[in-house]
Amino acid sequence: MLERIRIVLIGTSHPGNIGGTARAMHNMGLTDLALVAPRCEPLTADTVSRASGADALVHGAHTVETLEEAVADCTLVVGASARSRTLPWPMITPRALGERLPEELAAPESRVALVFGREDSGLTNAELQRCHAHVHIPTNPDFSSLNLAAAVQVLAYECRLAWLDHQADEPQAPAEQPLASHEELEHYFAHLERTLVAIGFHDPATPRQLMARLRRFTLRARPERMELNILRGILSYTERLVPRREDD
Amino acid sequence: MLERIRIVLIGTSHPGNIGGTARAMHNMGLTDLALVAPRCEPLTADTVSRASGADALVHGAHTVETLEEAVADCTLVVGASARSRTLPWPMITPRALGERLPEELAAPESRVALVFGREDSGLTNAELQRCHAHVHIPTNPDFSSLNLAAAVQVLAYECRLAWLDHQADEPQAPAEQPLASHEELEHYFAHLERTLVAIGFHDPATPRQLMARLRRFTLRARPERMELNILRGILSYTERLVPRREDD
Repeated sequence: MLERIRIVLIGTSHPGNIGGTARAMHNMGLTDLALVAPRCEPLTADTVSRASGADALVHGAHTVETLEEAVADCTLVVGASARSRTLPWPMITPRALGERLPEELAAPESRVALVFGREDSGLTNAELQRCHAHVHIPTNPDFSSLNLAAAVQVLAYECRLAWLDHQADEPQAPAEQPLASHEELEHYFAHLERTLVAIGFHDPATPRQLMARLRRFTLRARPERMELNILRGILSYTERLVPRREDD
Repeated sequence: MLERIRIVLIGTSHPGNIGGTARAMHNMGLTDLALVAPRCEPLTADTVSRASGADALVHGAHTVETLEEAVADCTLVVGASARSRTLPWPMITPRALGERLPEELAAPESRVALVFGREDSGLTNAELQRCHAHVHIPTNPDFSSLNLAAAVQVLAYECRLAWLDHQADEPQAPAEQPLASHEELEHYFAHLERTLVAIGFHDPATPRQLMARLRRFTLRARPERMELNILRGILSYTERLVPRREDD
């Protein structure tokens, strides 16, 4: 189970935090690290010093340019978020996240991504809206900014506890229907937006959070692949009704 | 409650770990730090850098020569221990420790100490035997040595969770957005089915469980009233595109 949990760090500035993250992961039995557009050289003397023997995880990390690439194959994407946002998103506690993991990872092809933002500014709204849910580590409101590796440590610890608890249980039956992957969901959202523009319902120049609201609604339902196929079928039928413009 | 939990570091070698400990404590709302015979200058540039704004806790720390002095007024002393020892001692998990805290700290004069050993060799047997119990953070057996500040982070997090749980007798705030009523949902499903028939996607004569699947998907998301209004708006825009039949 633990090998199918991916830690994703976006725009990290300090190599020491990458090393600290690798150590925290290895301590808790996690192995899958992805770095999205790091703002520093990932492997320096600081990395190795803070990794304290876990730098193999940094050597093995995938470095990519976008969050989409990092989580394309993931069936659950959870963003670590300190702030409550203008558009509220499903929020879970680290403990509730841990408790969900055995079921989320019951199917062998399932993957969970835990996404952490920049040291100075966290995750952007666009990044947060690509997540099924946000996890908030409860902190002192007067001093709420956790060190990046410390935040990874807390969530990795909850992952390990959930895994240990699960060892004693009976094996879970996988969900009957495979869930849609992040990539399939993004294709659906792109198709949905195109269609809403084509039918005149949506004007990207005045978005009024429309796509964000539709994302939140859809992600909350955790669509199965087959459900997404139905929804895309509806979009295709709708598109056919749109009169072709002369200059098309 | 949190102000009566003391973090005790024995024989720390790296100022950065003292700074990281202060940050982890302050993040979780702990304030009481004691240093026993540190093997480094506690306040250096490294301390301040890792403390990231929490160095006041290091300024306020009591530095003493022996564990006895550091925990003299404590009613419960718990030692962080990685190893199982020759002489078995009461062992608790971090979670069980958290669950015990509200009762342990119910009396106003009570104090709890969480004791952490040296980076290289942990607590001595003599120190461990001065503890009421030992707490073991579950780790990967192949890579079990946690960073000192990371270990403090995990236990401080459990302290904060226990404190928050203890506060949680307060009534919960209602959801910000009202959920759609059953009636509103049924109107939506009727509208959806009409539209899917109109665009030629759905034939009620051969339903293939289509509406059942769309119901299940939608209900799973527990739609808010506003979200349902958006979905009905999309249906209305779609219906307008359907060419009117001659006999309508």
